[in-house]
Formats: sequence, structure tokens, C-alpha cells
Amino acid sequence: MNVGVRAPSGTVNPMNEPLLERFHAVIPAGGTGTRLWPLSRAAAPKFLHDLTGSGTALIRSTYDRLTPLAGNSIMVVTGRAHGAAVSAQLPALTVGNLVLEPSPKDSAAAIGLAAAILYRRDPDTIMGSFAADQVIVPVEAFQQSVVEAVRIAATDKIVTIGITPTYPSTGFGYIRCGEPLDVEGAPNGRNVAEFVEKPEEEAAQQYLASGQFLWNAGMFVAPVALMLKHLRANQPELAAGVEKIADAWDTEHRDHVIEEVWPTLPGIAIDYAVAEPAAAAGDVAVVPGDFTWDDVGDFAALGRLNPAADETGTTVLGEGARVYVDQASGIVVSDTKRVIALIGIDDVVVVDTPDALLVTTKDHAQQVKGAVEALKAHGETDVL
Amino acid sequence: MNVGVRAPSGTVNPMNEPLLERFHAVIPAGGTGTRLWPLSRAAAPKFLHDLTGSGTALIRSTYDRLTPLAGNSIMVVTGRAHGAAVSAQLPALTVGNLVLEPSPKDSAAAIGLAAAILYRRDPDTIMGSFAADQVIVPVEAFQQSVVEAVRIAATDKIVTIGITPTYPSTGFGYIRCGEPLDVEGAPNGRNVAEFVEKPEEEAAQQYLASGQFLWNAGMFVAPVALMLKHLRANQPELAAGVEKIADAWDTEHRDHVIEEVWPTLPGIAIDYAVAEPAAAAGDVAVVPGDFTWDDVGDFAALGRLNPAADETGTTVLGEGARVYVDQASGIVVSDTKRVIALIGIDDVVVVDTPDALLVTTKDHAQQVKGAVEALKAHGETDVL
Repeated sequence: MNVGVRAPSGTVNPMNEPLLERFHAVIPAGGTGTRLWPLSRAAAPKFLHDLTGSGTALIRSTYDRLTPLAGNSIMVVTGRAHGAAVSAQLPALTVGNLVLEPSPKDSAAAIGLAAAILYRRDPDTIMGSFAADQVIVPVEAFQQSVVEAVRIAATDKIVTIGITPTYPSTGFGYIRCGEPLDVEGAPNGRNVAEFVEKPEEEAAQQYLASGQFLWNAGMFVAPVALMLKHLRANQPELAAGVEKIADAWDTEHRDHVIEEVWPTLPGIAIDYAVAEPAAAAGDVAVVPGDFTWDDVGDFAALGRLNPAADETGTTVLGEGARVYVDQASGIVVSDTKRVIALIGIDDVVVVDTPDALLVTTKDHAQQVKGAVEALKAHGETDVL
Repeated sequence: MNVGVRAPSGTVNPMNEPLLERFHAVIPAGGTGTRLWPLSRAAAPKFLHDLTGSGTALIRSTYDRLTPLAGNSIMVVTGRAHGAAVSAQLPALTVGNLVLEPSPKDSAAAIGLAAAILYRRDPDTIMGSFAADQVIVPVEAFQQSVVEAVRIAATDKIVTIGITPTYPSTGFGYIRCGEPLDVEGAPNGRNVAEFVEKPEEEAAQQYLASGQFLWNAGMFVAPVALMLKHLRANQPELAAGVEKIADAWDTEHRDHVIEEVWPTLPGIAIDYAVAEPAAAAGDVAVVPGDFTWDDVGDFAALGRLNPAADETGTTVLGEGARVYVDQASGIVVSDTKRVIALIGIDDVVVVDTPDALLVTTKDHAQQVKGAVEALKAHGETDVL
């Protein structure tokens, strides 16, 4: 593997790490971002949108963030329906690194299949899985955390990168840190005592105050062999399925085997299938990430990531938006060329698309998911 | 004139009044209803909309309300741009009764021209002017008030029909009532002491408490000769202009004379040009209307006129509307087939049209006018 490929000029170069030659990034690009409806849709999910005004889709920013670490060794796992859109966003992606799922099966199947394919190509591979739709600043701090994680993973650990909480979120799972590790070049590494589910408000307050908890951002760096070992132990059916597909992957049998096996796989999150039992077995470590992180979970997050450009306190997103604001504040996403007049509502959220309109407030941003579920129940599927 | 024409079967018949043979209704249909933007537009003003769910446009309801009194003797004065739309709404309107203004000139020019034309056709005519965009219930009570007004007008008075205030409105002008009149068949008639401009809140409270004040709904019933007399006395230039046009009206010179004279007319409201000076001269009477009345001035009014159909407290207007409401209340006007999701805002106003969207609250309904002015100032005239 040519390390030179991995350090484009002008990017930070954490390449003085021979272990990165074993590193292969994986980007699971799933989920529709229901709380960002009607901007995010089944046909155009969150990761295909530019939600930060950067000029590129979230998945492209994710890919670019990993290139200095992994070069072209980056695999994307996404739904079949998004293959063309992902390819258009990532022209450097190689065909061997695009894994298309016949149907959604949650993260364990996606990451497990990636691990199994990568294992067959090189059993010494250290994989790093990073969701396609996260916003991370600064990129250099993220890359340093990944390098630490890779160094710890090489000691046969599954390593997650945790986020230092900035408020008592009830929307994220948490990681309780254990004792510090003693791995050279990874001074911040610690064992993981346990993973904790999304807490109630009071518990979240305690987690924040204790200083012992990090947000679980779903980032995992691990030897593929270790990932598969825990998957086999905890989800034997799922493990057998993805290994059967992986055996056929780089052959002419790929299509008919995945068609046959994929529908039989259980849908389960990687946290339950691997991370939690592996933590209980003492096999999981964590590197606290020294960067700001957002999963752009709802329109309130979109407002945080895109501060208002003017004194009205209103964030306006959308090319050629024609928005008139009088005594109002909040966020307007304009996906049409319509004139939008907003009068006398604070912290409002207006999302205007050709076939669907959302009007809510930042405080109710989480309830958008309920609206989508209700629309689905009422058969309004053309706009979902 | 065939009185029989005036009493379609099934309507109340207040026709036992020979004076109605002199009666000719006039419907000034002007104004764009700026506070109802983006539903009401320059190209599709308020009076062309069905705002009450009745199935007919406001101007048609106004016409139908007058037919039992006036038969086909109903004149409409409107802008040239609306001639075709008005004709489509009012198939019974005769061509001699459709007066098209080359440009907006406020109510004195419109009503003055109508008076001058009607005077030339029959100098004994008693005209009754009623705006095209008012909602009145019950119709029979209105008709009884008009009959009383006609009886008083026949004693050579300008008679307005005042509305008993139900709250201390600062959005309407008021009429201060004087002593009772003694006109046979018009037991409720009183002299008008004065017309009062839109008051501040405190004054409005006093007016309401006194019981001596009525809302000025802009309804005037008067002998055309008396209207013209006061117009000549107070606005000689305007009077001379409309009389010159009226002289040519029923001839082949109509078009070029109106083209030449109309632009020179001063733009002034009938209240200033006739009603107030005539009241000062003791020539104005009032009949208190025993009916509910709304000029549908803004979206809050639209909410009052169209109570919520279900327990969500949200009024939804618009054929085929697809509206999802969660913990929200207010009014949604859907002029597209888009799905609208409304979450967590009370008393919200959402007006969704193909090229413009308004989001505000009932409390800010009056500020919509400011939005329209700002859009105009910014050159967004395509949506006004």
C-alpha cells in the first residue's frame, strides 16, 4: 500500500504512524434522518445534504476527513437506492469499496459485512467505522484521536472515540470511562467500564457533573478479526450470514448470494451485537475526542451549526432563498424559490420543500419524528 | 321595473316596500386585502375569494344578499383587471351595471361615478353602496336594515348602517349616534352626530361602554341627487370629473372620456368627501344593524369566521388540504396540495400558496400589511 497516496498536500499529516498501513475506514451511510423531514427523505437522506453551508454533502465531508488517514482505503456501506448518489458525491471511491445493501438491516449487518469482506482481503486490517452524517471540527483533532485509537486497537481492543459532553443530553447514549490504559502514543486511552442507554434528564445531569462519561458517537476502531470474534460469539446467525456473503463478495457469486442471505439477517445495532458484550468482556477502550461533534439530529442542531447571518436572529438556508423576517427568529430552510414571510414567532423552524412544509419551533424539533410516523400511518408516503 | 324579479323563491321578501322601486345597489369592489396576503393578491383580491367556506366568492355573497332588495338593479365598480373575474362570478350582472376603473382612485371616485351614472338614468334613484368583501349574518336582518335605510333616505338623508360593536376595536372608524328620528317604518333610525376616526385603545373602550357608538361599515344609502350635491360642495373637481364621465357613459364616447378624465381625479375616501361634511350639515342618519358583520380584515378574522372543525383547534381551509397537526392550533390556508406538518405552535397562521408562504400568529395578523409593504420595497412584486 502506497502511504504517499494518503497524504494529499495541504492536509494535516498524521502519517508518521506505520500502523495506518493496516487501517481501512468504513462509512455506514444509512438512516433517513427522520427528524430532519421534510429536508431529509427516504430518497434523499441526511448524509446526501449539505447541512453546514460547506458546499459539500455530509458524506463527502466525512470521506474527506478520513482520506489523510486511509487514502483510498475507505469503504461505504449504503442502501441500493443511494448507490448512484453516493458515487456522484465520491468520485474517488473504488467499486470494490462500495457495498450496497438490498434493504436496511441496522448497523450490525452493515459493519459486520464490511468487517468480513475486509478480513478476507487482509486479516490484519484495523477497521474504523464512522457514520456518514456527522459534523466534526477541527478535523485535525479528530484525526489525532483516530491515530490514538488505531494504536490501541493494535493491542487487540475495540476502540470507540467518545465525545466530551457539553450539556446533559437525553438524546445520546453514554460511555462510562474506566481506568487509564498504558499504550504508547495513546496517552488519552482508557478502558470502557460500560455503555449506557440514553438517560433521563436527572441521570444525564449526573453524568455531566461526574466527568466520567462521554457521549457515544458510534465510532469504532478495531481489528476486523476481533470484531468478527465478538460478532460470532454474540450474534452467531448474523455472523454466519455476513461471512457467507463475504466469501462470495469478490467473486461472480456476490449478487445472488447477498440476494439470498441478506433478507435472513437479524436487524440489530452494532452497540448491542458487539460493543456492549465486548465491553463486558473487558475488550473495549475509549479515546476522548478533543473536538466539537454534532450528529445534526434535528433542526435545532441545524440552527446551532448555522448561526444567523444577520441581526434578525434567523438562519436562512437554501440557495436563492427569498425570506422576509419581521420580529421573528429561528431557522428557515428554503428548498423552493417561494417568498417566505415570517412574522412574530421566536425560535421558529420553517422547512419549505416542493411537496411538503414543516412549521414548528426549535423546542419541538424532536417531535418531527412523530409527525413523520403519523404521516406514514396516514398513507402520505409520497412525501416521506 | 318588475318587482317579481326581485324575490326569488326561498328568500326572505322585504318587498312590501314601494320605495325599493327607486333602489339601486352599488358594490364597490376595490382594495387588495393586503392583510390577507398571500391569499389575497393584486391579481386575485379578497372579494374574489371564498373566505367562509360558503362555496362562493365574497362578491357573489354580497350580490346575492342584495338581489331580494334590488333585483337586477345592482352595479359593480371594480378595477379593469378584475372585469372578467367579476363577470364570471356574477353571470346575472348586466353590462350597463359593470363599471371598470382604469386605475384605483379610492372610494369617492368609484361611488361618485356610480351616483352620477345612476342620476342620469333616473334622478329619483336611491343608491345603496355596500363593499364587496363583507360577511353578514343573518342576511334577513341586513335586508330589514336596508329597507329602514331606504325609507329614511327617501326623506332626503344620507343613511349609513352602523354595526353594534362587540369589542373595543381600534381597527374600525366609529359613528356617534345623535337623537332618534321620526320616520315611519324606520323605528331604529337616528341622526349621526359625527364620524370618528379609528381610535386608540382607551377611547375605543369608552365608545364601547357608552352604548352611543357604532362601527362604521362603509354602508351608505342615499338619493343619488343628495350624494352628488354634497360631492359638488366638498370635492368640486372630483364631482365635475365623474359627471363628465357620466355624461359620456351611455354613449359611444365612454371609453375615451374615462381614459382622459379618470387619471385627473383626486383619490379620496367617500367618508371625507361626503359622509363627514354631510354629517356636519345634519344630513346623515344611521340605522343600527342587528346582524353580525365582519370585513375579514386579517387572518385572525378568517379564524373567527371559520371555527376549527375538530378538537385540535386548528382551522384548515383549502380543498384537498393535507395538514398534520401535533400540539398546535390556529389557521392553515392551503392553496397547494403540499403536505403541511404543524408542530407545537399555538394560534399560528400558515398560508401556503404556490409562490409565497406566510407564517405568523393570530396576534400578529395585522402586521401582514407591513410584510407586504416590505416585499414591495424589495421589488418582490411578482408575489404581491
